[in-house]
Amino acid sequence: MVRKRKRRVALKAGFPPGTLVSGAEPPHPAVAITQVLYDGAGYAEREVASIEEAFPAPGDERTLWINVDGVHDLGALESAGRRFGLHPLLLEDIAHTEQRPKLESYGDHLFMDLNVFHLDEATDEIHAEQVSIVFGARWLLSFNEGPQPWARPLRERLRADKAHCRQGGPDYLAYSIVDAVVDGYFLVLERIGDRIEGLEEELMASPNPQTLHAVYTLKREVINLRKSVWPLRELIGGLQRERDLVRESTGVYLRDLYDHAAQILDTVETYRDILAGMLDIYLSSVSNRMNEVMKVLTVIATIFIPLTFVAGIYGMNFEHMPELKWRYGYLFFWGIILAVGAGMLVYFRRKRWF
Amino acid sequence: MVRKRKRRVALKAGFPPGTLVSGAEPPHPAVAITQVLYDGAGYAEREVASIEEAFPAPGDERTLWINVDGVHDLGALESAGRRFGLHPLLLEDIAHTEQRPKLESYGDHLFMDLNVFHLDEATDEIHAEQVSIVFGARWLLSFNEGPQPWARPLRERLRADKAHCRQGGPDYLAYSIVDAVVDGYFLVLERIGDRIEGLEEELMASPNPQTLHAVYTLKREVINLRKSVWPLRELIGGLQRERDLVRESTGVYLRDLYDHAAQILDTVETYRDILAGMLDIYLSSVSNRMNEVMKVLTVIATIFIPLTFVAGIYGMNFEHMPELKWRYGYLFFWGIILAVGAGMLVYFRRKRWF
Amino acid sequence: MVRKRKRRVALKAGFPPGTLVSGAEPPHPAVAITQVLYDGAGYAEREVASIEEAFPAPGDERTLWINVDGVHDLGALESAGRRFGLHPLLLEDIAHTEQRPKLESYGDHLFMDLNVFHLDEATDEIHAEQVSIVFGARWLLSFNEGPQPWARPLRERLRADKAHCRQGGPDYLAYSIVDAVVDGYFLVLERIGDRIEGLEEELMASPNPQTLHAVYTLKREVINLRKSVWPLRELIGGLQRERDLVRESTGVYLRDLYDHAAQILDTVETYRDILAGMLDIYLSSVSNRMNEVMKVLTVIATIFIPLTFVAGIYGMNFEHMPELKWRYGYLFFWGIILAVGAGMLVYFRRKRWF
Amino acid sequence: MVRKRKRRVALKAGFPPGTLVSGAEPPHPAVAITQVLYDGAGYAEREVASIEEAFPAPGDERTLWINVDGVHDLGALESAGRRFGLHPLLLEDIAHTEQRPKLESYGDHLFMDLNVFHLDEATDEIHAEQVSIVFGARWLLSFNEGPQPWARPLRERLRADKAHCRQGGPDYLAYSIVDAVVDGYFLVLERIGDRIEGLEEELMASPNPQTLHAVYTLKREVINLRKSVWPLRELIGGLQRERDLVRESTGVYLRDLYDHAAQILDTVETYRDILAGMLDIYLSSVSNRMNEVMKVLTVIATIFIPLTFVAGIYGMNFEHMPELKWRYGYLFFWGIILAVGAGMLVYFRRKRWF
Amino acid sequence: MVRKRKRRVALKAGFPPGTLVSGAEPPHPAVAITQVLYDGAGYAEREVASIEEAFPAPGDERTLWINVDGVHDLGALESAGRRFGLHPLLLEDIAHTEQRPKLESYGDHLFMDLNVFHLDEATDEIHAEQVSIVFGARWLLSFNEGPQPWARPLRERLRADKAHCRQGGPDYLAYSIVDAVVDGYFLVLERIGDRIEGLEEELMASPNPQTLHAVYTLKREVINLRKSVWPLRELIGGLQRERDLVRESTGVYLRDLYDHAAQILDTVETYRDILAGMLDIYLSSVSNRMNEVMKVLTVIATIFIPLTFVAGIYGMNFEHMPELKWRYGYLFFWGIILAVGAGMLVYFRRKRWF
Repeated sequence: MVRKRKRRVALKAGFPPGTLVSGAEPPHPAVAITQVLYDGAGYAEREVASIEEAFPAPGDERTLWINVDGVHDLGALESAGRRFGLHPLLLEDIAHTEQRPKLESYGDHLFMDLNVFHLDEATDEIHAEQVSIVFGARWLLSFNEGPQPWARPLRERLRADKAHCRQGGPDYLAYSIVDAVVDGYFLVLERIGDRIEGLEEELMASPNPQTLHAVYTLKREVINLRKSVWPLRELIGGLQRERDLVRESTGVYLRDLYDHAAQILDTVETYRDILAGMLDIYLSSVSNRMNEVMKVLTVIATIFIPLTFVAGIYGMNFEHMPELKWRYGYLFFWGIILAVGAGMLVYFRRKRWF
Repeated sequence: MVRKRKRRVALKAGFPPGTLVSGAEPPHPAVAITQVLYDGAGYAEREVASIEEAFPAPGDERTLWINVDGVHDLGALESAGRRFGLHPLLLEDIAHTEQRPKLESYGDHLFMDLNVFHLDEATDEIHAEQVSIVFGARWLLSFNEGPQPWARPLRERLRADKAHCRQGGPDYLAYSIVDAVVDGYFLVLERIGDRIEGLEEELMASPNPQTLHAVYTLKREVINLRKSVWPLRELIGGLQRERDLVRESTGVYLRDLYDHAAQILDTVETYRDILAGMLDIYLSSVSNRMNEVMKVLTVIATIFIPLTFVAGIYGMNFEHMPELKWRYGYLFFWGIILAVGAGMLVYFRRKRWF
Repeated sequence: MVRKRKRRVALKAGFPPGTLVSGAEPPHPAVAITQVLYDGAGYAEREVASIEEAFPAPGDERTLWINVDGVHDLGALESAGRRFGLHPLLLEDIAHTEQRPKLESYGDHLFMDLNVFHLDEATDEIHAEQVSIVFGARWLLSFNEGPQPWARPLRERLRADKAHCRQGGPDYLAYSIVDAVVDGYFLVLERIGDRIEGLEEELMASPNPQTLHAVYTLKREVINLRKSVWPLRELIGGLQRERDLVRESTGVYLRDLYDHAAQILDTVETYRDILAGMLDIYLSSVSNRMNEVMKVLTVIATIFIPLTFVAGIYGMNFEHMPELKWRYGYLFFWGIILAVGAGMLVYFRRKRWF
Repeated sequence: MVRKRKRRVALKAGFPPGTLVSGAEPPHPAVAITQVLYDGAGYAEREVASIEEAFPAPGDERTLWINVDGVHDLGALESAGRRFGLHPLLLEDIAHTEQRPKLESYGDHLFMDLNVFHLDEATDEIHAEQVSIVFGARWLLSFNEGPQPWARPLRERLRADKAHCRQGGPDYLAYSIVDAVVDGYFLVLERIGDRIEGLEEELMASPNPQTLHAVYTLKREVINLRKSVWPLRELIGGLQRERDLVRESTGVYLRDLYDHAAQILDTVETYRDILAGMLDIYLSSVSNRMNEVMKVLTVIATIFIPLTFVAGIYGMNFEHMPELKWRYGYLFFWGIILAVGAGMLVYFRRKRWF
Repeated sequence: MVRKRKRRVALKAGFPPGTLVSGAEPPHPAVAITQVLYDGAGYAEREVASIEEAFPAPGDERTLWINVDGVHDLGALESAGRRFGLHPLLLEDIAHTEQRPKLESYGDHLFMDLNVFHLDEATDEIHAEQVSIVFGARWLLSFNEGPQPWARPLRERLRADKAHCRQGGPDYLAYSIVDAVVDGYFLVLERIGDRIEGLEEELMASPNPQTLHAVYTLKREVINLRKSVWPLRELIGGLQRERDLVRESTGVYLRDLYDHAAQILDTVETYRDILAGMLDIYLSSVSNRMNEVMKVLTVIATIFIPLTFVAGIYGMNFEHMPELKWRYGYLFFWGIILAVGAGMLVYFRRKRWF
């Protein structure tokens, strides 16, 4: 993520503010544009080749949703900008995919930047993408870096459920998208929770630098996630206060969503605490092991070093060493050895060293 | 707790917001529904088979309390929702038992989600359950995951005490339930306090990784508890500011309750500080022990290694080693040995190593 | 303190809110009740046997102060409650002596709970007691767990100083009590400051686990103290904002008091920082000592182990070992030994190991 | 930076507030003054020898931008101060180059102090300079310690883009300068991010005190950077609230800029967390290595010390040692040795010590 | 400082609030009182023997500044209190020199308490003193514990600069005093910065417990300094909001002063972070050194312990040891020794242990 955030500089350097330069990483997949038109009575959906085809016909009172997968098509962006009166800076924010989540009001339309997290099941990696939403009284534009897993189910719901969703208008549609994005956070958190549990067990069983490194990496991911969740919660809070474009009936859903964001934040903070605690556990675990190693060394060395000294004495070549001549000198030696050794063992047992 | 929170994701994925899916874990106990009707004059209580039977008769001016033990009966939820005009999201919050405590106003009724902590005396484990309360001007609905220990005493008090409790209305009843829940927190804190004292004594007597692990586990439980107490305090504060459905006579009780919540929070924070300090104590205790071990090793090794060297010298086979031939060479050897050994002992005694 | 706070649970369990159950620990000393009546013109003080005797005569315009030492006399509490119109919860707060400091307004009277700290000079222990104050326009009731050291001097001042204190009314009297309580905090802080200095010297001279344990215990006491000082400051701040029962002339005194509370809080926070730093100092001190021990071991072992090896060589029994036959073989051996030993010493001196 | 901040004292000591004393470090480069005049219709730019030449002609309605590279020319400062009615303290702030970023309103003109960070590509060092901006309704003065890399591109944009930039007035010009400064922060952050990655790899591969020192140094640079970014964000926020001199059309750009500052702050905080974590990683890495070293020592010592003892026994010179006379005594000895050694190896393998 | 703060208790115990007891430490230097009278037209200054002589003549419209060096003269304090209508608590705050910085409004006059830090160049110690300022519309009283270094230059400026300073009135004079005090903070910070740099170099070159102790002491000084700077900044902020006694022309100077206080706070916080980091550096440095020591021990011991074992074998007295009889047995022994030793060296070199 650190790497991604940097790209912004190179892109923008030398251009005046408001210049459109794409921030998406090549190679770009083909841009896919979907036009959806609906109201309480009907629902129509079609793929279009260019964004101009998706623009609403004059007098069409239905809610228009244009979804663009692929933000590197600057021509489409500029065209939409002209058609819906979008500020150059807004278009720049859509094109640059390194934004932090934010909500901005432009009078007759609202702009939202969201970070979406996808879990690559194969590699177990978390990928961040950006979803930008602009909506006015009758229309909503959504721009994604690539195809989104929540897009199809959402359209299915719109098609199926006449009464509720379709009468909601663009504000309810915007809520639905943010809700789907927030649900994605829960999935990512679930995965992180699993990984934390796995690491804990590993740490207890056999602490090693690789485990610590994994803890550390996970901690950084959680810090990065947190950086997205804080402004997300503010964003939803801000949306609740927008009284012009967000209807009161949508307000109660947003309150619920705010709650989910708060719950995610709680969990992220808890994970952070747990991960920070795991570093302590690791250090204390390493300390314990070193203590164990030291005890073994000390027990062996303190028992045998004095004994070796005694053996050394009777290996001396003095001419006058009466013990050497004793009939039971050797037995006497073993008596000393066993007494000293046993005394040591009793001493260490009392100190609970083994 | 981390595990419980995760379940939410799987449940909700693929459903639009407001869809009722039960979050309670199977196998579900039988749902028990109690209808209580009271006013200053009288008190009536009966078990009902279905929630529809518990709905108030038209024109009944008495305060109605319907208590439902078991939130997995979605039919009952939906039926109550239709009867009392509850929002689908409110019903969803009741059915999903992983919510954080919150208070939400829906105009003519208030909704509260609470976390209840039960202590399983047998296994010494802390279980979290959810209690949801909705109340309007004349009625209160409470939904629990299972039977609650505070339910019977509360009904007894209502039956017995005409003057005070029965005239209080649903807001006073809601206060009484929250009060009972908060009292449960004190019991849990008491248990945690006992455990902390036990762990401290263990840590002083014989620090070992198991104790540390217990400290660490307890710390996580306290962090989880804290996550429930923070919003609980806010909830009570919010209840105090609700001027429509909460009468002024109840306000003074809520102020007292707020105080208790603040006291719980104080204690939780103190426990957290103490537990964090215990990790430090553990580490320093392990350091001390290693220091002790090192000292023993060093004393033994530094005394005997030089002596062994001296013994080694006189074990050499040089043809010309005058000392070996001395009449008192062996005594002379012992003299050196005792002098060096005694000097070492004096040195270590001065350094206070033993 | 942790132990005291727990008792609350057992006391309250099973009782409805507002039930009077004494929280004071038996055995209870005899209850002492003092009635003081004063105004600018006169001062009267007498011990009374029951609280009813202390109630003011109708039409008496003098300021009434009833001081009760011993809060376990629930009859007296209830009687005072009826006479002065005190809320059951207020009486409960007086009887339960585990409250955190708080200020509550009940319209025509104010209620304050304070923690008092006494220093037992003999055992050097800090005891916490509770002082509860209720005052209206003309009267003030104070309830203490036991006799208070500040009670007599305060009455002396009232008797002596006509002009100032006696015209102050109950609000000024309440201020005087809180001021006396706050002065007690300074005495406790002074003692803690002395202990910290003593521990620091001990830690520098000879760090041992007992010192660390004392640091740790003191840190917990400071944390507990802090838990009382934070709400105390808020309490004084709240008193400043009470415009009905607190006259403006008392306001300037309260501002001064607020300042003292802020100063106490500053000192408590500083002590906490210092004590936290002392744990670090201890750990680094233990590390240093272990480093010292290791150096001694390493110097001795690295000098003598190679020398012992050399001695071992010439203790071998090979038939063909030319050195053994040399005339000056033994001298040659000593030459090697001294050279190697001296080289080691130079090496360690350069590394500054001794 | 610590060093720079100190100079302020020596400069100011003994002078009354508002006295002009230059804070720039000698030797001073030549002062370069550029006068730019523009409006929607035209653009004129020229180098002038003295600031008086750059003052606007009466009645000239064009936007005036005077850029001064070199703030040690106190005469120019005083002259500008007289011409544009600048307060002595404002001039002092320009001359003293150790200010923290700030925004101050002087009624008909606004004053901003900014810290600019330049990356010296050759030495990889980060240099801080100060840029001061004063602007009124028709004019803008910018004072830099030396030539700025963003000055030329900015003037090019003014010359080229008639419609947008040139109609913006001094507030838009001020925004453009701050925007260029903020872009410089991204470049510095990019470099710090690279260095962090490099240090991480180094720390994993071979932790040594030099790496730790580099981490520590980088951490201090990040702390210093943070000290500039916090007030910078406030500055931009303050600029947004200035409704007199900042037009609404510029507001949307400032909102975008505020966002960038928030993003920089996020990144700085993340870097700080990461660097703090690296110290932990280092310590645990050193602990691990010591553990490894201890294990090798312990394995070797615990295997060979007992064996040496056994060899010592059979090196003794007792007259009656039956084993020495056995025919297969030596083989028997080797049997013991190999059995003990193999037993030890099995034991250590089980303990996973190698 | 801890020591100073304590004295307060002993002083106040047993006295009612508002009783004047001097807090200055004996022996007291002689009290010096200076009367200054000035306006735009003239300036008069004289030393007076008693404070009563310094009181203004009726009808004198000039600004009066009475500076008192020595606050233990309680008679002077009381006399000034009567003359200028100062509250007893205000006089108590002046007499007790352990106050934290504060600003208090008494309607027609303002009261400020400041901490001044002096650097004793000889002993390199930082001394804290208290400066109290009271000012009304036409007069300013300043009370110092002893002579202040900023007093003379300030009077010189008043005498010299007619236009600006002398027309400022007491509010500008108060600003000038606070400004001089704040400049003193910069000098102290400069000294602390120097000490930090010195300690850093020492810590890198040769970490020892003395250096750590110095770091720890400095950290406590910085914590104490911080305790003065926080309320100082608030004090200046409060002064800016005082609209009655502080004229608008002084406001811009106060804004500048507030900025300096913020800058001091920044620096203090940075120093605190750096000093906290130095404790980590010390610990890691000690760890490194222990690691070095361990490596030397391990290398020596693991090379020579096995070799000594081999030498021990051939020192045994078995009758049947074929190797001993070999012609080249001794050479063969040396071959083994050199091979094992060289193998060990290669192994350690690969592990980068030396």
